[in-house]
Amino acid sequence: MKNRLFAFTVSVGLSVVVPVASAYNGSALSPQIQIPGYTFGQKSVATAPYTLKDLESLKKTLLFTDEDVLYLRKSKEILANQTDAILDVWYGFVASTPELVEYFKNTKTGQPDGDYLNAVRKRFGQWILDTADANYDQVWLNYQYEIGLRHTKIQKNKTDHVKSVPQVNFRYLPALTIPVTTTLKPFLAKKGVSAADVEKMQAAWVKSVLLQTILWSYPYVRDGQF
Amino acid sequence: MKNRLFAFTVSVGLSVVVPVASAYNGSALSPQIQIPGYTFGQKSVATAPYTLKDLESLKKTLLFTDEDVLYLRKSKEILANQTDAILDVWYGFVASTPELVEYFKNTKTGQPDGDYLNAVRKRFGQWILDTADANYDQVWLNYQYEIGLRHTKIQKNKTDHVKSVPQVNFRYLPALTIPVTTTLKPFLAKKGVSAADVEKMQAAWVKSVLLQTILWSYPYVRDGQF
Repeated sequence: MKNRLFAFTVSVGLSVVVPVASAYNGSALSPQIQIPGYTFGQKSVATAPYTLKDLESLKKTLLFTDEDVLYLRKSKEILANQTDAILDVWYGFVASTPELVEYFKNTKTGQPDGDYLNAVRKRFGQWILDTADANYDQVWLNYQYEIGLRHTKIQKNKTDHVKSVPQVNFRYLPALTIPVTTTLKPFLAKKGVSAADVEKMQAAWVKSVLLQTILWSYPYVRDGQF
Repeated sequence: MKNRLFAFTVSVGLSVVVPVASAYNGSALSPQIQIPGYTFGQKSVATAPYTLKDLESLKKTLLFTDEDVLYLRKSKEILANQTDAILDVWYGFVASTPELVEYFKNTKTGQPDGDYLNAVRKRFGQWILDTADANYDQVWLNYQYEIGLRHTKIQKNKTDHVKSVPQVNFRYLPALTIPVTTTLKPFLAKKGVSAADVEKMQAAWVKSVLLQTILWSYPYVRDGQF
């Protein structure tokens, strides 16, 4: 399975994945300034329609504990200088899955939009770090809602000023939990931590990504049913 | 974590969980006759609004392969005579989580409805077996839609003729993937299969349960956005 997943990278056409500098290079500039469209903590982000209490209930249901938070933090040190390699794998998976690359299609050319893919990729790299050291506070919660909106008809394409398909269909959001966290595992294992710790970090990632995709789903769900 | 999860069972009040005979006892009667409200394959079940092609795309996105199907099948032999013990753990988790037991509340008494819990439990036991040897055909797909409807305002409470809260909120459906599959692992490990096979069976279960909860979500999602 590992080999098959890594093979995705090989199959990526150059027109689809444009290599970029690391999304977060540790310079003094904040990610908000370095990464266009990354608005975490900014005033433009609306207040989430769910509360911190709702979040606590969801975390409880997901068996998401303080231990998971610690293992996510631990994963940050390991993943921080591997984000480009991880993104190569994730973008390779998207590029080799027509149902997914569809969402990056330029509606004028009918082809994947390299600039769009590149712009999203920078924020996606930052998302790896943000997932690893999330604070689960109101600011974080608001940004989950913002990310959700950016997948729907309400906000997709606006951040990057692109002409693409109007929405990512809901069903692929929770589904992506699996490829994202499955392909992450070899990267978690690269820095000589124990197999048991790799398992715990990956399990924490599965919970966190599923939690986030559930929060992102809010604008897709009928009124009063979330 | 294992100990904490099993401790859920201990904390279950008798008023909440009513022990029942095994949901599927291998007698000549079909589950449809033995289990009230279990209508898999029956004419009353509507055609799903998603297609087999949609299902294939979702399976691909979830990295759900033929190997996962094989490991799910393998899990059936292991789980078949443990379904009551598994349900004790799952019901223990629900009973100890106020946000979840709420969905079994009798709106007259304000208390969890023992008859309702018991009726759902029988179908839940059958669901374990159905998840392990699913065929992923149109009949299976239709029943996923039916299960989804039974969680929403459209159909909840009707199958069991109960007076309870009108819906299960969407967000708990995908979230339950984690407790269901985490607590399953010790049961998968009980029959002396290798640790590697336990991992593969559990990973297949995670994918299958997440796949199902995504399909169950259809009636919650706004028109044209699923």
